[in-house]
Amino acid sequence: MHISEIDTPAILIDLDAMERNLERVAAYSRAHGLRLRPHTKTHKIPALGRRQIESGAVGLTVAKVSEAAVMLESEPEDLLIAYPIVGARKLERLADLARRTRVTVSLDSVEAARGVAEAASRAGVRVGVLAEFDAGLRRVGVEAGEPLRQLVEAIEGEPPLDFEGIAFYPGHIKMLDDNGDEELARLSSQLDSVVCDLQRAGFNPKIVSGGSTPTLWRSHEVARLNEIRPGTYIFNDRNTAACGACELEDCAASVLATVVSTSVKGQMIIDGGSKTFSSDRLVTGTEGFGLVVDVPGAVFTKMNEEHGFVELREGASFRVGDRVRVIPNHICAAMNLHEQVYGIRADRVEEVWKVEGRGKLQ
Amino acid sequence: MHISEIDTPAILIDLDAMERNLERVAAYSRAHGLRLRPHTKTHKIPALGRRQIESGAVGLTVAKVSEAAVMLESEPEDLLIAYPIVGARKLERLADLARRTRVTVSLDSVEAARGVAEAASRAGVRVGVLAEFDAGLRRVGVEAGEPLRQLVEAIEGEPPLDFEGIAFYPGHIKMLDDNGDEELARLSSQLDSVVCDLQRAGFNPKIVSGGSTPTLWRSHEVARLNEIRPGTYIFNDRNTAACGACELEDCAASVLATVVSTSVKGQMIIDGGSKTFSSDRLVTGTEGFGLVVDVPGAVFTKMNEEHGFVELREGASFRVGDRVRVIPNHICAAMNLHEQVYGIRADRVEEVWKVEGRGKLQ
Repeated sequence: MHISEIDTPAILIDLDAMERNLERVAAYSRAHGLRLRPHTKTHKIPALGRRQIESGAVGLTVAKVSEAAVMLESEPEDLLIAYPIVGARKLERLADLARRTRVTVSLDSVEAARGVAEAASRAGVRVGVLAEFDAGLRRVGVEAGEPLRQLVEAIEGEPPLDFEGIAFYPGHIKMLDDNGDEELARLSSQLDSVVCDLQRAGFNPKIVSGGSTPTLWRSHEVARLNEIRPGTYIFNDRNTAACGACELEDCAASVLATVVSTSVKGQMIIDGGSKTFSSDRLVTGTEGFGLVVDVPGAVFTKMNEEHGFVELREGASFRVGDRVRVIPNHICAAMNLHEQVYGIRADRVEEVWKVEGRGKLQ
Repeated sequence: MHISEIDTPAILIDLDAMERNLERVAAYSRAHGLRLRPHTKTHKIPALGRRQIESGAVGLTVAKVSEAAVMLESEPEDLLIAYPIVGARKLERLADLARRTRVTVSLDSVEAARGVAEAASRAGVRVGVLAEFDAGLRRVGVEAGEPLRQLVEAIEGEPPLDFEGIAFYPGHIKMLDDNGDEELARLSSQLDSVVCDLQRAGFNPKIVSGGSTPTLWRSHEVARLNEIRPGTYIFNDRNTAACGACELEDCAASVLATVVSTSVKGQMIIDGGSKTFSSDRLVTGTEGFGLVVDVPGAVFTKMNEEHGFVELREGASFRVGDRVRVIPNHICAAMNLHEQVYGIRADRVEEVWKVEGRGKLQ
């Protein structure tokens, strides 16, 4: 199949770029002795989870129990659900899952730990637990110090739970910010004291799990960190490039779109808007909902659900039916909107993958 | 089933409110002799398309051929695809569809008209066409005057196409803006001259199709307008209320969410973020990604994919496992993210609907 036969809008995955991305992060993790437990929210495709495992990942990460059920198909030795599992139905499904593979969850409350422990106990399974602490994002995670010690103590006090270590998500650190290096150094010294503190209290946090794609390449500078959970790196996106964590040529995913209207002068409308790309802005605040590839001066200024508004530089000329490729701001959010995506090499479609994990909310 | 048994996050549809919304718009349309051709992008559920037809809609509107195929199940006498159909595969599917029911498309270019005509001709079917003109949104639609006359002439020149009239989308008119009334009056006089102009040129635009939910209740003031295509009115959302087109109590859809973390003081994290609500902002620019029902002073300040950040007024107290309901900013975008939704009356679940049209991009 040639890409000209693909109906638009559609996500194309450049397989050469994707394979380079997978290999590069696997090599970095190996070189620095870091466990690689990639977050599969970016692709949501079991075949790609499998590729991550084959290139050296020790397990896979998901956000929801329903996503974990999908990613079982990748046959991971270990599945980390990096989200507090709360509520009877989810806990039942979690326990079912733990019968089928090794499952770890991260959580930040005694209530959540108790819920998981009760469900595991009823099902006669064990569940690994990472205690989540807040490294500065102020999202989930208890404060370091006494609150974290209490949380770990509660986990250790639940017989069906295996305390495995600590987790955090450094989403607040932007390496290109003026204070990026300072923030990274602060994280490093915080982690060191958190681990020492827990050890002094008699606990053994074997795993220290963090990392996001934007801070990925600096992971080896962070004391005590021994596991990373990047997601976006498999494809990268305009945000990753804007954060300085990849070059634009490392963006493996793009949206193929068709020009459907040129009625307004200096503008073209493409057949993808927020229902195709998501309405996520660029984290740096820079203009545009995506980068129109190979159209110098084009700015993706606005979107409705089905319409992408692209402003064109004077003299640029497109006709109804022309096709363009757009690198999305946030590929994880875009993948969640597509039933299937196309793996391509040059102009040939090599793979058609169903996005089996999309829309798994519970 | 009781709503306490629903796993979160989940969209709840208050059936009483929805039925009131359906009836109110049907009554308004009847009272003013307006054809009601609701846009089904808001619900994407054939059973609800059926209810719209039963309450007086003359047909249904969709944005994509793939959505049309789903909404056939509502058994509409007429399906309007309010989007230029461009590209061989879509045109083939359009022709297939036209074998099964009466199909109309709106379009704004000679290229698009020619494509539809060729596909219809090959399949031996007829397709109705509305010529789209730009009433000021600067999205799709040719300019009134010579460009519109040329477009209509091109449509009339294609034997398998039935020219039915004109269409526009007045998304730029905000009734609460200072110049809202003025914009509406301008639209009215523009429509009058557009119709006269076409009639003078020998064309007969039987249908003059416009309308959006925000301008819905003023449709009878617009000269020549004889068809409206509101979508959001079936559920309404925070945007509709912010535009003054409904009261908050008319918002039939809300997201049921669970508090999963209270680790950060003055804040709770709910289990729905951009993957549950979409990251659509409020059109008025007012703060917040949704309205937390019955929690005075709560502000839904920020979201990641799976995390909703809700700032709480001092003294408000939530625990992990508590549930809240949130009225989304943009219900159409939220519906597209859910596999199924729950129709409720008081605390009972009466209906579980699969969102069959979600993610239909092509």
